[in-house]
Amino acid sequence: MIQLELAKQNKTTPQIAQVAKDESLAVELIRKNLIQGKIVIPNNKKRKFVRPCGIGHPLRTKVNANIGTSVGKASIKEELKKLEVAIRAGTDTVMDLSTGGDLKKIRKAMLKESCVAVGTVPLYEAAVDVTRRKKSIKDIREEDFFEVLEKQAEEGVDFFTIHSGVTLETISRLKNQGRILDIVSRGGAILVEWMLTNKRENPFYESFERVLKIAHKFDVTLSLGDGLRPGALADGTDRAQIQELIILGELAKKAREAGVQVMIEGPGHLPLDQIEMNVKLQKSLCDEAPFYVLGPLVTDIAPGYDHITSAIGGAIAASFGADFLCYVTPSEHLGLPSKEDVEIGVISSRIAAHAADIVKKIPHSLEWDANMSRARKQRDWKKQFGLAIEPNRPKKVRMNSNPDTEDVCTMCSKYCSIKIIEKYLK
Amino acid sequence: MIQLELAKQNKTTPQIAQVAKDESLAVELIRKNLIQGKIVIPNNKKRKFVRPCGIGHPLRTKVNANIGTSVGKASIKEELKKLEVAIRAGTDTVMDLSTGGDLKKIRKAMLKESCVAVGTVPLYEAAVDVTRRKKSIKDIREEDFFEVLEKQAEEGVDFFTIHSGVTLETISRLKNQGRILDIVSRGGAILVEWMLTNKRENPFYESFERVLKIAHKFDVTLSLGDGLRPGALADGTDRAQIQELIILGELAKKAREAGVQVMIEGPGHLPLDQIEMNVKLQKSLCDEAPFYVLGPLVTDIAPGYDHITSAIGGAIAASFGADFLCYVTPSEHLGLPSKEDVEIGVISSRIAAHAADIVKKIPHSLEWDANMSRARKQRDWKKQFGLAIEPNRPKKVRMNSNPDTEDVCTMCSKYCSIKIIEKYLK
Repeated sequence: MIQLELAKQNKTTPQIAQVAKDESLAVELIRKNLIQGKIVIPNNKKRKFVRPCGIGHPLRTKVNANIGTSVGKASIKEELKKLEVAIRAGTDTVMDLSTGGDLKKIRKAMLKESCVAVGTVPLYEAAVDVTRRKKSIKDIREEDFFEVLEKQAEEGVDFFTIHSGVTLETISRLKNQGRILDIVSRGGAILVEWMLTNKRENPFYESFERVLKIAHKFDVTLSLGDGLRPGALADGTDRAQIQELIILGELAKKAREAGVQVMIEGPGHLPLDQIEMNVKLQKSLCDEAPFYVLGPLVTDIAPGYDHITSAIGGAIAASFGADFLCYVTPSEHLGLPSKEDVEIGVISSRIAAHAADIVKKIPHSLEWDANMSRARKQRDWKKQFGLAIEPNRPKKVRMNSNPDTEDVCTMCSKYCSIKIIEKYLK
Repeated sequence: MIQLELAKQNKTTPQIAQVAKDESLAVELIRKNLIQGKIVIPNNKKRKFVRPCGIGHPLRTKVNANIGTSVGKASIKEELKKLEVAIRAGTDTVMDLSTGGDLKKIRKAMLKESCVAVGTVPLYEAAVDVTRRKKSIKDIREEDFFEVLEKQAEEGVDFFTIHSGVTLETISRLKNQGRILDIVSRGGAILVEWMLTNKRENPFYESFERVLKIAHKFDVTLSLGDGLRPGALADGTDRAQIQELIILGELAKKAREAGVQVMIEGPGHLPLDQIEMNVKLQKSLCDEAPFYVLGPLVTDIAPGYDHITSAIGGAIAASFGADFLCYVTPSEHLGLPSKEDVEIGVISSRIAAHAADIVKKIPHSLEWDANMSRARKQRDWKKQFGLAIEPNRPKKVRMNSNPDTEDVCTMCSKYCSIKIIEKYLK
């Protein structure tokens, strides 16, 4: 039996127990919200790993790191190094988005090495396979799509992004809309090419039951992808995007009815003042399913700095209820991320997630900040580094600044406000 | 005659004309809002420089970079290099916060070299002077405070931070409050030491008319400092902070009545969901005076990454109406910033400011993003770099990634969604 069924029989699965412990919440609450679809715990029944995590309300906001090869950059070693870096930096899950090299070998290595949940976009493998056979996307057989799903589920992948909402209806609305950047989702674009060249409906929509059957068999959590997520601020919250979201809401309902865990993916690029509405709309249209956002990026004009634009959007989204932040690295829009990009990407998203967790009143979240501020008052540098979300960079900054004394820093030196005031405000 | 007086006589000063041109707004609107105190244009009447800017509603959100020496790090050359870096990165103003070396010489060099408005905290010079005479803060004579004001105004400083709201009343409320980090403002801490050791009221409060007289004489814009700004999330929006804000609102009213341009400084460290309220409260209590925020930082636990925590808070604050963002660098809480810190600090704040300007519907702001997205659709890399808020880093990222083709990037390579879709969604 799979998690959702066990939960409905009032059983406490090891995953539920662990999430309850990690989050300082009652087992009963986790179970109830899992049953209601407000929480998912991605964990393929074929796979055991150290740190399964819960995603949803009222849990700590989680962070995902996308790694994986591309056509020109297909070193397994390099990607495993990124996996290590992402986990050390504190990511809660990873996605293997490989499209270069031996996909199965890479995935197997990731599944073996990762102590956190691993997700994929199975569709990529179908596209890569057909391309390698010197054929085109059009030539992917419907069966191929479901075969990669079955195969990857069998291998132990914990969650799948499935672009079931890219339907003939949404494509028609997209055309009617007239966007600057029609589709910026790789999976979405591949599906549209397949659908339009074959004049067929999306198989992941039309035969959603087959997706559910595979997911159910292996307890794979579904992450319903937003193939039509806006890739430009000007395209944010348009009719095409919301049409897809309505369909995803309907499919999420079907998934729950079939006992399959499900979450919903979201934007993308959005003006800052559209973020609250997007989160509330998703929660309403998808019956409180966990919301997994890629960004949102609050401006298009900062390539090289999109870990910052997405930290702004991610913090706001999560503060209004988004549950899961997909990191964005400084390489976004420019190239495959390096190890260094992976690290700063995870840290930036964790900062955004934590800033939101304070608003969400997640247990112990504000306490962390208060302890840091107490260490600052004491000018206890060791304690500050110990409490820092990432200790190496602040240690280096302080070391390089050569402070005169152990006590203060080179910013204010003997005019340190904290030191001045403690004598007079006892 | 000074700007505000000329404006009241229906004159179009060169500054008003320039701001109107820069912001694509009518001269009449700028003049009206300057008279009403919704806009300030810092520009000492003794100083001519290339780029005076307007700060306030409904103008583009502006960015300030704090530079200047400290006791152990007092190289004029190094600080002038930082000035150059800050201006090249696009800062709208700078503040010289020097406390090390020959303060007058440094300030003179900054005023000479800077093509943007220069601000200072004159109080620092009084504190440094007395300390160098082997005396203590207590021994600063009341006259000394006003002498440095007069001297710096005479030299051409465009705006002064004056901590007039640190009064015996606010200190009493601060004590009653019980904070983790009582005072994190250098100027605030020095004044509290002076007031408590001398058992005297704050001279900048008690003799605010003298401040106004000097500011009026040289058309120095006053930036009323928040000596009691919260330095820890746990201290955000407390009674001490808001008490000071009430007093600053009263003083802002006096300043306007005296024909002196005035803006208000704000937090600091704040939980994300307290930012909107803080901006609205400031606008209400200070009769729509421009709001100059330092951050706000939305978490305390990310030393080394506070350009990110403050970009999150700054974007939100500005989207709700804050007018002026003081940058925060990765060295905040750790040491005096390096040139590299200054650069990333300015860029991070400009990203935050621009994300907010889209919400504020500043003329041409969303157009910039739309042009970038069009360049992305065309995969026109040269155009993308030309439109980037900072072109060097994205250029470097792309160059280092060795893309196979001119056309796409190494993230998706031949599976580029934009390229796939353009054939099918014509």
